[in-house]
Formats: sequence, structure tokens, C-alpha cells
Amino acid sequence: MSGWIAVAGLGPGAPELITPEVAAALAAATDVVGYNTYVDRVPPRPGLTLHASDNRVEYERSCQALELAASGKQVVVVSSGDPGVFAMAAAVFEALEEGPAAWRALDVRILPGITAMLAASAEAGAPLGHDFCCINLSDNLKPWSLIEHRLRHAAAGDFAMAFYNPRSKSRPEGFAKALECLRETCGDDRLILFARAVSSDEQQIQVSTLGEAHPEMADMRTLVIVGSSQTRLIERPEGRQPWVYTPRSASGERSDS
Amino acid sequence: MSGWIAVAGLGPGAPELITPEVAAALAAATDVVGYNTYVDRVPPRPGLTLHASDNRVEYERSCQALELAASGKQVVVVSSGDPGVFAMAAAVFEALEEGPAAWRALDVRILPGITAMLAASAEAGAPLGHDFCCINLSDNLKPWSLIEHRLRHAAAGDFAMAFYNPRSKSRPEGFAKALECLRETCGDDRLILFARAVSSDEQQIQVSTLGEAHPEMADMRTLVIVGSSQTRLIERPEGRQPWVYTPRSASGERSDS
Repeated sequence: MSGWIAVAGLGPGAPELITPEVAAALAAATDVVGYNTYVDRVPPRPGLTLHASDNRVEYERSCQALELAASGKQVVVVSSGDPGVFAMAAAVFEALEEGPAAWRALDVRILPGITAMLAASAEAGAPLGHDFCCINLSDNLKPWSLIEHRLRHAAAGDFAMAFYNPRSKSRPEGFAKALECLRETCGDDRLILFARAVSSDEQQIQVSTLGEAHPEMADMRTLVIVGSSQTRLIERPEGRQPWVYTPRSASGERSDS
Repeated sequence: MSGWIAVAGLGPGAPELITPEVAAALAAATDVVGYNTYVDRVPPRPGLTLHASDNRVEYERSCQALELAASGKQVVVVSSGDPGVFAMAAAVFEALEEGPAAWRALDVRILPGITAMLAASAEAGAPLGHDFCCINLSDNLKPWSLIEHRLRHAAAGDFAMAFYNPRSKSRPEGFAKALECLRETCGDDRLILFARAVSSDEQQIQVSTLGEAHPEMADMRTLVIVGSSQTRLIERPEGRQPWVYTPRSASGERSDS
């Protein structure tokens, strides 16, 4: 049998959010490559070799996976969420572009998954029900000035926004700066929600406003969504969490910038 | 048994892209409510009533589903893709907000699915591998001026962009105007891809540039992705479709606006 490589999205965590397509690829694989935490979600079985690696070695991990596939292995690279959204697919193509020409003839498939922002949105209601932006707040691979530039355009365009990697121990200040920029451009009343560890037992959803939000409400396991000017709350009885949603229609009222 | 309502994403079309969570909800339902085309994807079985309705009656359909759940039925509202992205979830919350207060105590769950832009992105490579925007190009529910306003900010922020509902028989001019606006803001060399009927037997992926793209390349079954300034092609041997991807790192070079 000839080698192939599938870059597969495991979804946010719950097994019932893994597509049958991804499950079938895992069942057919000889090798699984990925970050420790995600490889740990794949049950071991005879004939399957698990290659777990540390965080922040996405490029090296991609080269390893491509080498295995080129040598005839059936390789699944596991990613959380969707592999195409701030995850392993882009890293695999970077390695592929710079690697040996023979890699370009490989059978490469990207298998979509439920990305964190859509799982978080579903738990909260439908905050991304109208036009939105999706921004990685980590400045590991881009200058902070570009992040702020994009935040300002997202706000000026009145998009809802989903933020990945809002805050980590090594980057505690970025999210505080992002909140400041958003308060300035969207005002204190704008809705913001913090979805932590979505679809796991530790799931927590917090609904707040930019005026009340503080940086410590987010960590690396949190997906943050900021509403557009149209995003609304539906209050519910008996102290239940309100639903947050963005209507399908927009008045067109907005501050020009 | 008491009633509930689940707004479920069926994904782009292929059965292997339906999550086990959605399959379980369909198996437990007494009633399925939705647009004809999507209800047709649910196999009939004894004990299950299918309520198919026409396009453009999302609000009425939502009221019907909420009434059924309030009367004790187990109701799945089917949506294509992800219900939270230009689909049924927002419509259900609109109906819920305006409906009887008792509806607010209902058990409502949104079950995420593989949305078209992520399925399209996966088939093409990883064009949404960095920050991106997601815009509905239909001006049925918002003024065209707001769409153009958002296109201009998305371009100025150097986001990749995914466009839903780019073109229909009743709105043939909008997409032509959008292409003009994008050529002006992003230049003729910017990559654009047209993903039609993704995950079905009729799937077609076309990679082009803004300079070469013409409006007829899109219809209502097409998901359009425009790259950022960083989006690249990887050519492949033997006339195979090139991969399109956006690297994870950004130089920060951009034209300020």
C-alpha cells in the first residue's frame, strides 16, 4: 500500500464531535503524529505507532509526518478543532513547500473538524450568526502591531470577532491591550463571552461586557467572542445562562470610519 | 418525556461529515423541521415526522419548531453546514426572543457542524490558516453599503475572506460589485478560489486570481475564498490542482489605510 497523509481535526474535545471521516482515517492509519495532548486522545491499538511531540514544534512535526508518508506509511496528523484554523494544516503545507520536490506528489488530505469558535458559539447561542472575523491573538508569529491593526478594522467594519489563543503565561499583556483597544473602538457595553474548555467536563461559559471584562477571564484554553453592535442577550428564567445571538438582519446603522 | 429542540448542522453534504452528536439527535427526534433540501437528507423512519418547508421562511419555520417543542415533541431543526454560521440558529433565537415567555424555559441546544468555508478550505489546502473574515454576500437582510463597508475593512486589515451566498438568480449584480471592490483594494494578483458543491459528487474547486475571476464562476452553491496578501500556491506535478495555503506567520508588511 502506498503512503498518504491526512491532517485531521479532532474537534474541541468531546468524542461525539469527531466526524466519521476522521474516525475512519484514524482506523486506517499506521502512524499518528501530533502534539502530546491531542495524540493522547487517540486510543492505542496494535499496528498503530503514536508519535507525540511537544508544543511549538509544528514545522518539525510536519516534516516528520511527510517523511513517514513518503516512506509508505499511512499517517494521520492530529489537530484540535479544525486543522485549517490556526492548527496543523498550514504548518504541513509550509514544510511541504520547502521540502523535497517528491513530497508534492504525495496524497495529502485535510479532514475538517469542529473548530473551537463554532463549538463555543453553539454553547452560548448564535453570537457568530452574522458576519464575523477570526483572529489569533498570539504574537508568537506576527507583530503585535498587525493584531491591533486587524482589531481596529474588525471593529470599524462592525464584525463579531472570535479570538483564538487570547492569553498565555508567556504573553500575559497582549489580551489586556486587546481589551483596551476593543473598549476604545466598540464601547463598554459591547457583549463579550469567554468559553473555556468547551465540550469537556470543565466547560465554563461566561457572558460579560467589554466594560466589565478583565484579562484574567481568559487563558490558553479559552475562546473569546466579542459581539457586533447588533449582538443581543435573551434572558432566561431561574438563573439560567442567557443566550447570546446576532440577528441575521442588520440595520446598516454604524459609525463610519 | 418533555420536549426539546436541537438546531443541528448537517455539514456540507457528505454523510461522513455529520458528527455523531447530530446523528444521535436525529435518532432521538420525534420531529425534524427544515428547508426541503436538508430534510431530504434525513432518512424517514417510523415515529419520525418530517416537516419540510420552502426557502426564505426561516422565521416561520423556527416558530413551528418551537411550538412543537413546547408541546412536548423532541425536535431537530436541520441546517446545512454549521447552524450558527448564516443558518438556522440565529433565526430560532429571533423567534424565541419575540415569542411567548414560556419558550425561554425550553431545552434548546445548538449542535455544531462542518461549515462550508472549512470544508472548502480543506479541499483547497489551508487558505484560512491565518486571520480571516466570514461575510454573507446576500443583501436580502442587510444593505449593500454595509457589505461593501465590510469588504473594504477586511481588505484593509489584510484578512483572508470567506464569502457565503455569493450570487443567486435574483441577485446577479452583487458579486460583480464585490469583485470590483476587491480588485481595487487587493489588486489583480490576489488569489481567489471557488469551491462548488463541496463534499458532493459534483464538487468543483477552481483556483484563480482577482484579475482573472469573473462573476459567473460563482452561484448559490459556491463558497468563495479570497486570500490575504500572504496566501500562496504550491504547484503540483502531473496537472494536479495546486494547493492554496496561508502561512501561520505574517511579516507585518502591509499597506496602512
